[in-house]
Amino acid sequence: MTEPAVLRDRQHRARDAMTAAGVDALLLSVGADLPYLTGYEAMPLERLTMLVLPRDGEAVLVVPELEAPRVPDTGVCDVRPWPEATDPIARVVDAVGGARTLAVGDRTWSQFTLALQAAMPGSAWVPASTVTAPLREVKDAVEIAALRAAARAVDAVVAEMRERPFAGRTEADVSRELVDRMLAHGHDRPNFAIVGSGPNGASPHHDAGDRVILRGDVVVCDFGGTMAGYCSDITRVFSVGEPSAEIADTYAALAGAQELAVQAAVVGTPLEEVDAVARRALAPAGLADAFIHRIGHGIGLEEHEEPYLVAGNDRPLRAGHAFSIEPGVYFPGRFGMRLEDIVVATDAGPDRLNEATRELASVD
Amino acid sequence: MTEPAVLRDRQHRARDAMTAAGVDALLLSVGADLPYLTGYEAMPLERLTMLVLPRDGEAVLVVPELEAPRVPDTGVCDVRPWPEATDPIARVVDAVGGARTLAVGDRTWSQFTLALQAAMPGSAWVPASTVTAPLREVKDAVEIAALRAAARAVDAVVAEMRERPFAGRTEADVSRELVDRMLAHGHDRPNFAIVGSGPNGASPHHDAGDRVILRGDVVVCDFGGTMAGYCSDITRVFSVGEPSAEIADTYAALAGAQELAVQAAVVGTPLEEVDAVARRALAPAGLADAFIHRIGHGIGLEEHEEPYLVAGNDRPLRAGHAFSIEPGVYFPGRFGMRLEDIVVATDAGPDRLNEATRELASVD
Repeated sequence: MTEPAVLRDRQHRARDAMTAAGVDALLLSVGADLPYLTGYEAMPLERLTMLVLPRDGEAVLVVPELEAPRVPDTGVCDVRPWPEATDPIARVVDAVGGARTLAVGDRTWSQFTLALQAAMPGSAWVPASTVTAPLREVKDAVEIAALRAAARAVDAVVAEMRERPFAGRTEADVSRELVDRMLAHGHDRPNFAIVGSGPNGASPHHDAGDRVILRGDVVVCDFGGTMAGYCSDITRVFSVGEPSAEIADTYAALAGAQELAVQAAVVGTPLEEVDAVARRALAPAGLADAFIHRIGHGIGLEEHEEPYLVAGNDRPLRAGHAFSIEPGVYFPGRFGMRLEDIVVATDAGPDRLNEATRELASVD
Repeated sequence: MTEPAVLRDRQHRARDAMTAAGVDALLLSVGADLPYLTGYEAMPLERLTMLVLPRDGEAVLVVPELEAPRVPDTGVCDVRPWPEATDPIARVVDAVGGARTLAVGDRTWSQFTLALQAAMPGSAWVPASTVTAPLREVKDAVEIAALRAAARAVDAVVAEMRERPFAGRTEADVSRELVDRMLAHGHDRPNFAIVGSGPNGASPHHDAGDRVILRGDVVVCDFGGTMAGYCSDITRVFSVGEPSAEIADTYAALAGAQELAVQAAVVGTPLEEVDAVARRALAPAGLADAFIHRIGHGIGLEEHEEPYLVAGNDRPLRAGHAFSIEPGVYFPGRFGMRLEDIVVATDAGPDRLNEATRELASVD
């Protein structure tokens, strides 16, 4: 559990950011801002949990009475349980007091935001990430250690999967194995386990299904979970049987582009430039048009968070940014490939947290 | 997969409800309204997926290009993929056209609703459940069959767990077994597996943790998942060793109250009355104050949905309502108990979908 002193320091920095942004109060519900600032994660249910963090004054956590026993006793907020069949919106309004510019959690359910807007019609509303993203995207040493531990756990899963048979099994069966192995290697929960075989690999977010994997398939495995609060996320490609020349050549181009992008992830470089480096590297092989998504996303308490490495984001990389580098190429009806590692930008250069081999796996 | 004709009929009824409610367009993202009307479930990610269903005119699905291959080809909406690094909000605004009263999905991330409000400042906003909840809460025969199949699967898990040892194992280990058994009995995904042992059982939504279960404990197991799109949700109590007289008596009172509440779940009865029946039944044993939550929630595509059986909800039960009946009693620092089944209100009376025995389990 995060130390109360760390939580208090984060609240202090959030208040400084609120002052700078002209925000009077943060209103946080589901999502990672709440655990980042309080150590408590709200349940994604219809009973409202909401932290009111005013720029001045005490933080108040409005929580359903039946969930109150789950709140850790950290002393960093005043916990106010609301009994069943009472109105949590009124309690939030009471805690907000005179605050008028309100920053509501990005993932807060809209039903609650609409109810709050109706109850406080004179207020201005902005997304909480205006305040919280600049804090959360820069990881401290404890957070980087947690990300590294999660990365090493999925590295171990990759090493095991390279020795496992794929042919004759369904995607869903392989996906289940990935989940089991993540848990066995210390993850607290799986977040996803994409297994896209053959033509299904051309759908980047394919849901592992009942397709039976065949010899000659390329299989994209993209999986991650949460370990001690922080996320893992890795993608490796498995060739079932020896790869054809086309597969080997395409993979070599992809791995080369990924390597260049990792090397380009230097403090001060615009985030979009890391994406552009990979795109330029894929162009000579005619693969740039097949790379249909951004190269990466930030990672931390959430699988996807700031900073996003995407065209149009010209903010510079900062030391402590943690993010994926995951170029992919997709050929509808035929196959797809993606190669992903988590990288931290440091003053000494890019620090790749994943150490699993990037050699194309050839499995049975 | 839901038949296109069924999806079209639901869209037709949604449009009728929009006309009655004065809503010009539905804007649906994550949550169950979208699959209910289109057969497609949005990924809960930072790239916006949104269905625009106008009262008149074609339904439009704005979807990230890399997720477009996941959309089933049902022909019930115009699929418009947005390429990476372009603006999905502009595409939604375009599809909304002149619509002015907009109903946004209850679980839509607030970051998107705020962005849409900023882009369409003249609009009025209401939660989509205004339109969709009255449709979704009344289940048709196919939906009831799906709920029954999911209920029978968790019944089978209960039967197996009654033969399993509990003492000496952690809550997390038992929780993992519940998940494994749900999957083995046909569930596509687990949604939760609460295991609250001894004093932890007094926290209704306890996270299964590393507490080792002891002889003499009462253990609350509350678990459910999704099977063919529809949810299961069951709670049973396990006494580790022979129950004490206090445990046996408390459980008997709880089971009696649950039975009376199930019998009270008759079409036309106010929803809150089902809750009140159980509360009155617990009072003579001095247990009413220990029952700190409502008696139940609707269930369907989501674990918790309308109708809620709670004080203050005086709407009448309708045929086709599907919901939990789950009284619970909680004694902080000591133990807790809850007993839950899923029930469908029918013109022939309450139809309890779960058939697992409600006798107090005594396990090793």
